[in-house]
Amino acid sequence: MTRSSPPVFDAAFAAQFRELLTWRRDVRRFRRDALPEGMIEQLLGEMELSPSVGHSQPWRWVRVRDEAQRASVRASFTRCNADALADYEGERARLYASLKLEGMREAPEQFAVFCDHATERGHGLGRRTMPEMLDYSVVAAITQFWLAARVQGIGVGWVSILEPEVVREALAAPPGWKLIAWLCVGYPEEETDMPELVRAGWENGQ
Amino acid sequence: MTRSSPPVFDAAFAAQFRELLTWRRDVRRFRRDALPEGMIEQLLGEMELSPSVGHSQPWRWVRVRDEAQRASVRASFTRCNADALADYEGERARLYASLKLEGMREAPEQFAVFCDHATERGHGLGRRTMPEMLDYSVVAAITQFWLAARVQGIGVGWVSILEPEVVREALAAPPGWKLIAWLCVGYPEEETDMPELVRAGWENGQ
Repeated sequence: MTRSSPPVFDAAFAAQFRELLTWRRDVRRFRRDALPEGMIEQLLGEMELSPSVGHSQPWRWVRVRDEAQRASVRASFTRCNADALADYEGERARLYASLKLEGMREAPEQFAVFCDHATERGHGLGRRTMPEMLDYSVVAAITQFWLAARVQGIGVGWVSILEPEVVREALAAPPGWKLIAWLCVGYPEEETDMPELVRAGWENGQ
Repeated sequence: MTRSSPPVFDAAFAAQFRELLTWRRDVRRFRRDALPEGMIEQLLGEMELSPSVGHSQPWRWVRVRDEAQRASVRASFTRCNADALADYEGERARLYASLKLEGMREAPEQFAVFCDHATERGHGLGRRTMPEMLDYSVVAAITQFWLAARVQGIGVGWVSILEPEVVREALAAPPGWKLIAWLCVGYPEEETDMPELVRAGWENGQ
């Protein structure tokens, strides 16, 4: 049933919304306790309200609970992170080595998020000249999930220091599924309004 | 100054946030009246709070007011949309031809949003194995802008039926800037909780 009487968001809501954006963090330090029953389903339901090109809804969320699968992906992070460290020198290398860049051992919930390039949904609308719109639709959905989680006090960390093909293989992802993100999800150990990389002085380091 | 006393979002806020996601639309029918003074600056300020890989903040927002520039981009849409129509047949072609897929004549504010692939910010952190993270950071920022606009009753429409190179040339974009989106921004002519493509039956058409 379509509704045509829209909600009005007042100044108090707008101020709280700005607070939400201000306190959303890319979380790498998680508590290990489980989320409440039904919470993931609720957040995925809000994610589903995201925009997508041609209404294609190409996101495929895989909730990864298997310890062997998680271990394969952690091993990929370890390799990639060592390679990344080797690219830096001097003070920046020392700074990089000190950063905690993922929470894959602690986060109780973890997801691989793929884009289904084989989907027929949307019939190609809006992506003839910009086919990357399909991937972008998945990024928009992840962004909404991230904010919806923060509303509930739940943190999200996006890990990209990975070999996408290793993740695909570990999860036996169908052909045509492109890895967009690995997400760690759980209650954060601390709250702050300042990005961790800013606090660490990553941009200013020599 | 870092704050460590986070806001708590209560059930009333969470319900309103869900309404926000439910009523956010990809708007193609705009009123022509201008936005209030300072509104665009406020929305861009909220956009700046978006996550980005390595805190690289690679988004470059170009507010396009020049009529000749807008006309070049509209002409690109017209070409691309005609090509897209030619790909469909029968009932689906008739349905496609009936869709209004952009509001470029009416929307008072329009933006080209680029990703700056030449930025040094972030020092490559987090994008060694997934370089597309830089583009994804811009998509996340657009998503936050979109929601922040809707909080203020303002609609956003993402136009992707364009030749990115034509937009780049029309705006004399610097080398290394990749077009991510063309956005139309203004008050919507109508409000609805149902995507226009769903109402039009795009997925069900033969």
